[in-house]
Amino acid sequence: MGERPASVGLLGGGVIGAGWAARFLLNGVDVRLYDPDPEAGRKVGEVLELARRAYGLLTLAPLPQEGALTFAASPEEAAEGADFVQESAPERPELKQELLAAAERASDPNVVFCSSTSGLRPTELQARMERPERLAVGHPFNPVYLLPLVEVCGGERTAPETVERAAAVYRSVGMHPLVIRREIDGFVADRLLEALWREALWLVHDDVATVAEVDDAIRYGAGLRWAFMGTFLTYRIAGGEAGMRHFIAQFGPALQWPWTKLVDVPELTAELVDKIAAQSDEQAAGSPVRELEQWRDDCIVALLQGLRGEDTGAGATLASWERSLLDGGRGVQAPGGGPVLHESRIPAAWVDYNGHVHESRYLQLFGDATDALLGRLGVDAEYLTSDGSYFTVETHLSHLGELHAGDAVHVATQVLGADEKRLHLFHTLRRHGADAPLATAEQMLLHVDAVTGRAGPARDAVRDRVASLADAHSALPRPDRAGRRIALG
Amino acid sequence: MGERPASVGLLGGGVIGAGWAARFLLNGVDVRLYDPDPEAGRKVGEVLELARRAYGLLTLAPLPQEGALTFAASPEEAAEGADFVQESAPERPELKQELLAAAERASDPNVVFCSSTSGLRPTELQARMERPERLAVGHPFNPVYLLPLVEVCGGERTAPETVERAAAVYRSVGMHPLVIRREIDGFVADRLLEALWREALWLVHDDVATVAEVDDAIRYGAGLRWAFMGTFLTYRIAGGEAGMRHFIAQFGPALQWPWTKLVDVPELTAELVDKIAAQSDEQAAGSPVRELEQWRDDCIVALLQGLRGEDTGAGATLASWERSLLDGGRGVQAPGGGPVLHESRIPAAWVDYNGHVHESRYLQLFGDATDALLGRLGVDAEYLTSDGSYFTVETHLSHLGELHAGDAVHVATQVLGADEKRLHLFHTLRRHGADAPLATAEQMLLHVDAVTGRAGPARDAVRDRVASLADAHSALPRPDRAGRRIALG
Repeated sequence: MGERPASVGLLGGGVIGAGWAARFLLNGVDVRLYDPDPEAGRKVGEVLELARRAYGLLTLAPLPQEGALTFAASPEEAAEGADFVQESAPERPELKQELLAAAERASDPNVVFCSSTSGLRPTELQARMERPERLAVGHPFNPVYLLPLVEVCGGERTAPETVERAAAVYRSVGMHPLVIRREIDGFVADRLLEALWREALWLVHDDVATVAEVDDAIRYGAGLRWAFMGTFLTYRIAGGEAGMRHFIAQFGPALQWPWTKLVDVPELTAELVDKIAAQSDEQAAGSPVRELEQWRDDCIVALLQGLRGEDTGAGATLASWERSLLDGGRGVQAPGGGPVLHESRIPAAWVDYNGHVHESRYLQLFGDATDALLGRLGVDAEYLTSDGSYFTVETHLSHLGELHAGDAVHVATQVLGADEKRLHLFHTLRRHGADAPLATAEQMLLHVDAVTGRAGPARDAVRDRVASLADAHSALPRPDRAGRRIALG
Repeated sequence: MGERPASVGLLGGGVIGAGWAARFLLNGVDVRLYDPDPEAGRKVGEVLELARRAYGLLTLAPLPQEGALTFAASPEEAAEGADFVQESAPERPELKQELLAAAERASDPNVVFCSSTSGLRPTELQARMERPERLAVGHPFNPVYLLPLVEVCGGERTAPETVERAAAVYRSVGMHPLVIRREIDGFVADRLLEALWREALWLVHDDVATVAEVDDAIRYGAGLRWAFMGTFLTYRIAGGEAGMRHFIAQFGPALQWPWTKLVDVPELTAELVDKIAAQSDEQAAGSPVRELEQWRDDCIVALLQGLRGEDTGAGATLASWERSLLDGGRGVQAPGGGPVLHESRIPAAWVDYNGHVHESRYLQLFGDATDALLGRLGVDAEYLTSDGSYFTVETHLSHLGELHAGDAVHVATQVLGADEKRLHLFHTLRRHGADAPLATAEQMLLHVDAVTGRAGPARDAVRDRVASLADAHSALPRPDRAGRRIALG
């Protein structure tokens, strides 16, 4: 995954800068941020709140302790002592040049600088730097804390090592760096986005469609494909067994025909802006932007989780980041004498159209608590590969209350007993701050050997920790619902 | 949802025509298809296989009995007696005109005709029809059996009623019709897609990026947003609290700058085609198209299911279609004397990166079997709203074997007992054709009254069916694992 920096300096705290702050902080990186806007503190705080909420839904992997956020009074102060600097100022070349030059003076000569610019060339941005070889563009996408793409592009004087080091930093915080090999205005993604937007503006301009209809033409159709494959792979598949060449031969002539139309740039007259703004208000139907942002984040989370199941594209990026968190977060000290706590938050996606959380989600929470406990007992990625794993053979679930979307919950886990192969657990699920359990689960787990593929004793180190935890927990009262059987009675 | 036609006539069985055949057949509609290609039978069969697999993963709602597929020797034969006709021939105006005119002669005068054309205007297509008022464009997206979007567009002589009736047919098979109010070449979606593709071709032409890099620039970034919101809502959110007008004011000038570049049409020289084809081969890394298609379908299924959780866009379309299937599929006759069977297939998305199906998915299967049983006992959408529902209060799960992706499985459910409020079930999960159970679940359910919100007796009709099923099942042997408790002992 690459080495995570301990601290970063951020120049600019608008939508993009605040998004960077959130991504770094939630990955355990300290952030020093400079923004002359007196409202910067409030704005960054709001984005950070959105990001905390989204990460709570995104992953059950153990996030590192959140980094410390401080505000700097100058670009120099933001850069001083930072391991990496990211500039996200407005798109004015002189302003960016000035900020980068100021920050550079206060910074260690080996530190890499990146600019979030969506269109300016790095060659122009590095013009006034003393060490231009350490500057690259690192262009992210909104929301920066969720979307994995970051375009990394060097200028004429950028050292190849700078591009590699920037990519490693981005990878370490769960992103997918795409190195752009040739410097052009707008890089790759924004060229594509703007071609599409230009066409969309024409469609609205000519009253062929409203903004909501244009959006529907994307999200009910091709947009679903674009979440995991781009335009070229789509057309390759459309070409059937003969592939891309066949597709171009077959559809090229028909496609060329609309291609020759409307490639002008629509003028943003007051009238066109009025029309778009009015249609956009109608589309949003009064939803405040914060609500739209949360909905957007929920959707992205659901898509990332869906693609994670396919181990594809952005889902593969998520899986790889989670594995790095799991390996980083797992201590092998056995937990102390009280029940072991596992915390979680209920994703909106878990609620069905009747407003209920499916019963299987309760078991998912208990399974996650078991996994977290096993991790703390030394059953880590390496143990799973070489030594073995515990599998659930029996579960007794009791439903005592109802979960709701957004609930902050925890599972307390008590070891009821253990032998060399078996582990007997009792979980209790509660809402934070509430005493009454929402559900309980009694589980029997069996250790299966990775070599023989059959039930067999756990390795000594794990067994010792299991035994010591079982011993500590034997002092706890036995739960009332342990050993229940089901009967109409 | 609109009334589903009993039978449709399809003209053309290529990728699009075969996709239509699959969507209609799997929605229980009979299909008569004309295609002069001697390979049409094989090709349609292959697409139908893909679609059956995808629907097995997509939904646990009860699909209607598959429609009957027959091949017609002429367009007339395909259209005769059909309730709806869809033309999907190659994009040659004369060919389409000829097919439509021939089919029209054999068809009832009230039947609606739609063309799948992606670019030709309906006014041109209806030119040679006797009843031009009954023709509209119904432009779908590949794969037609999964993507909900269909653009519906009338020509100069199309009756408004034709557009409405076409939209109703599409809605009835789970699609999202987008009515295009003004007839233009390429309609809305293809205008957007081609603007993007034109830009993508330039990027490859100029060696700024390879086809794989262009695709990555989409799928790791903006493509994730496009699966649920289009370009206008994206930019509205980017505009923050001040919305769309602010976004255009702030970013308009910067965006205009790359806008003025590269709006020419790249010429498809042999050299450019060679380059794209070679890079596309590299991107596909030897995967045959069938494999790519299955991967594509798995991803779309995962995205649709993710968005269903948010009840958004294409996910809302899926949920609404599923509700219609549930209401349509639920008989209220009590099942016979044997255990009640519920069939399913294990989605690839259920397998984690270690190749295991999470324990909670077993409970999901059992919960679905319970839901299906309740539906057959008369607990339908109306009952849930006005009368009440059964909630699981206790579950005892035993794991006896392991599920794998793609497994066809069934759950046999036996009623162990019931009173006026409670229902005691025992489920056994098996792989098709295998005797050994993979898992069992004993469950106690409690009826909760929709009016009081508290436990209370089920309505008479439901109670009678429950009692009669419990009575019938009392003759079955009691399962060995019923009444188990967990213990190390």
